[in-house]
Amino acid sequence: MEDHHKKMQSDSCDPDRPTHPGTFPTCEAGRSDHQPAERSVDFPVSVVLPAGGTGERTGLQTPKQFCLFMGRPLISYTIQAFERVSWIQSIVVVVAREHMDLMTDIVQQFQHTKVRVVPGGSTRHRSIYNGVLALGEGRPVADKPKVVLIHDAVRPFVEEDFLYKIAMAAKEQGAAGAIRPLVSTVIATTSEGYLDHSLERAKYRASEMPQGFTYDVIYQAYQKCSESDFEFGTECLHLALQYCGTNAKLIQGPPTLWKVTYKRDLAAAESIIKDTLSRSACAITGGSAQAVTLAGALQKAVGALNMELAVIPDLTGENGGYLLKDWNFIQVSVNRSCLSEVDALLTDLEAAKQALLHPLVVILVLLSGSDELSVSGRAVEPEAIMDLASAAKLRNILLYGIQLHQSKDTQRWERSVSRVAEITSALIRDRSPALVGQLLQA
Amino acid sequence: MEDHHKKMQSDSCDPDRPTHPGTFPTCEAGRSDHQPAERSVDFPVSVVLPAGGTGERTGLQTPKQFCLFMGRPLISYTIQAFERVSWIQSIVVVVAREHMDLMTDIVQQFQHTKVRVVPGGSTRHRSIYNGVLALGEGRPVADKPKVVLIHDAVRPFVEEDFLYKIAMAAKEQGAAGAIRPLVSTVIATTSEGYLDHSLERAKYRASEMPQGFTYDVIYQAYQKCSESDFEFGTECLHLALQYCGTNAKLIQGPPTLWKVTYKRDLAAAESIIKDTLSRSACAITGGSAQAVTLAGALQKAVGALNMELAVIPDLTGENGGYLLKDWNFIQVSVNRSCLSEVDALLTDLEAAKQALLHPLVVILVLLSGSDELSVSGRAVEPEAIMDLASAAKLRNILLYGIQLHQSKDTQRWERSVSRVAEITSALIRDRSPALVGQLLQA
Repeated sequence: MEDHHKKMQSDSCDPDRPTHPGTFPTCEAGRSDHQPAERSVDFPVSVVLPAGGTGERTGLQTPKQFCLFMGRPLISYTIQAFERVSWIQSIVVVVAREHMDLMTDIVQQFQHTKVRVVPGGSTRHRSIYNGVLALGEGRPVADKPKVVLIHDAVRPFVEEDFLYKIAMAAKEQGAAGAIRPLVSTVIATTSEGYLDHSLERAKYRASEMPQGFTYDVIYQAYQKCSESDFEFGTECLHLALQYCGTNAKLIQGPPTLWKVTYKRDLAAAESIIKDTLSRSACAITGGSAQAVTLAGALQKAVGALNMELAVIPDLTGENGGYLLKDWNFIQVSVNRSCLSEVDALLTDLEAAKQALLHPLVVILVLLSGSDELSVSGRAVEPEAIMDLASAAKLRNILLYGIQLHQSKDTQRWERSVSRVAEITSALIRDRSPALVGQLLQA
Repeated sequence: MEDHHKKMQSDSCDPDRPTHPGTFPTCEAGRSDHQPAERSVDFPVSVVLPAGGTGERTGLQTPKQFCLFMGRPLISYTIQAFERVSWIQSIVVVVAREHMDLMTDIVQQFQHTKVRVVPGGSTRHRSIYNGVLALGEGRPVADKPKVVLIHDAVRPFVEEDFLYKIAMAAKEQGAAGAIRPLVSTVIATTSEGYLDHSLERAKYRASEMPQGFTYDVIYQAYQKCSESDFEFGTECLHLALQYCGTNAKLIQGPPTLWKVTYKRDLAAAESIIKDTLSRSACAITGGSAQAVTLAGALQKAVGALNMELAVIPDLTGENGGYLLKDWNFIQVSVNRSCLSEVDALLTDLEAAKQALLHPLVVILVLLSGSDELSVSGRAVEPEAIMDLASAAKLRNILLYGIQLHQSKDTQRWERSVSRVAEITSALIRDRSPALVGQLLQA
């Protein structure tokens, strides 16, 4: 698909990927032009996240919500999508009893702050009910959330904008839910397995998540519903209608609401996460004229590959903000026989704790003289980079090296720079742990 | 997701990926244990493949069926899935007029043999009808297909087994179609956008592709149907029921029938194709004792990463079959100062024309003495590999190098071998064009 990456990324319309990915708060915070206008929600909103699924449809032993994406479970991405929304107060994650410890570890490891973990029931509805009860338990009415959002743990790409719409509609109507157009025609079958009739596609929608309810409506619906509803029902909107007479407002959501269901969806989710992590990088030049020139040329070359590159002399002062803003760093070093610059960068990155959530990529671009041995002595030993990379990998930082030689032949120089750009883009996109510590030749 | 690749691949149940991928005939042909029993279909079957979609749901300018996956359009994978089925006689691809030339080029470039390209109509039904007419046009009754299969160009992973079921049921019942369980609850909405009611999920199914009809039923259905059906209908099964009184037999298909619909599906499809290409490799040792030992150790190490490795001395005699069977080759060379072995391999691969359909990966594993300079002279120049790789890339062959040093220290040696295995596996999986020609260090 590589041949189409460019096409895809340059398309203005990109309905399938989050424009304001809930999963990547610090990066987005650094891009004010991409930021949705702050909406005021002047009532308390909490979230119930049922995560009791067993993953049978992926065919994996690990339930989908606990599958790792670059070392981090899917559910942590979903939690982050809610945690970053300022007007959401708390998130109750409901998991099967046997996953309580695992889930508690995840909350701790990825430093989630708004989350409480509670044990689920034997069915989806019982689990959601447990979550709703946990939000109200022993609290005075004034402390209960006005609106409860219910979402799936395996829909990580939900965006603030849409959560806002659902929360507002839920407050006004008592209940609201996301819908999507049907992808396939729906048909009714006879008991013998023959076509009975097909439904007129235009009249029906797929019911998706998130859904929102006033606390009162969802609480009452569960109080009144039957054992059979608890056992076999799947649709909260239906309970609200049947037991509270509340017709939910239906709102068409973006394709980003999709649910990780099949194994192929794991690959799709990984691709979206990697794309989001690969959009920009920060090049540190140290201020030398040669390094600045090279970084400028690189900026242009990776720009053609749809990556933004910020060029800065160092990470002091205001530029320190990049440590919290990006996941990809390029250290440009000229005629260096030691790795002190990249070593210092690794230390800064570790202090900034960005690698907690995602593997960071650091690429050392070594510009040497036109001979193999650089002006100021030997070029860097490949072994030294490998050692540094092995240590960095333990801290979730992926270090790679690219070497290029100065050349006065313009064509040759441009070819080298564009090769550095291609290699950089591929390393950042693929985030391959197997290739760390390599000194690649441009 | 890398942390889960192992888990995924070792799971016996893998419902989402084709077990006998229609897209990869030569490889499968080499694995008789994976091969479904040959089914006898003693009546003529042809295929209509409507491919007129405009790709609006992916948000891309290129319609999905023409999106490239490793240099090859999606529709070519789908065509191959049908071409490999011995009992399918011909495939009519129906495309928009403006894509006739493009489609004709694709058929030529990827050497499809059973395909005829015809222009589509203004709607999906008109296009399918054009395809059906093209199968019957000017032929005596005896030459018309008994059964017509209709499929989507953007469902590339359909398997022979399932096509057989549909074809047989279509012959017996007049019509047959694939169904899948509903992923989401389907709801009816009021005209004001509120929930009207939700459908009982167990009673309904999603109607998918392929579908099959006797030629007579599909021809009659289109002869009799109204302008409104041609304009707004989507479901061929419905026309067969309404105009021929034929209740289609519905058969539950595997998840591999999924349709590439959204942009995220492109990533999922690419991942499935890459996985399929990455399952096995062939290591060529040249017969030297050291190379054989190394290849044996590698075989074990990549085995732990779920890749099968065949070890052979060369490609002569029966082993020549590997040229038609695999997409990944490892040339193990010991103390070589020239690249003659890998050069010969590239020539063989080019002659075998396997790179026509997919980029082939060739990895040169260079085992040198414990010093940097090998016993018999200088180690290979990195520039020489780069030059060879640049030339190979033009022929759709991706050449990479990995160097490791002989060591008498067992631990050190084992670490090197396992690093070669990890790098090999990553290079084969990622198939990154940006990294060709690199000499990586293990």
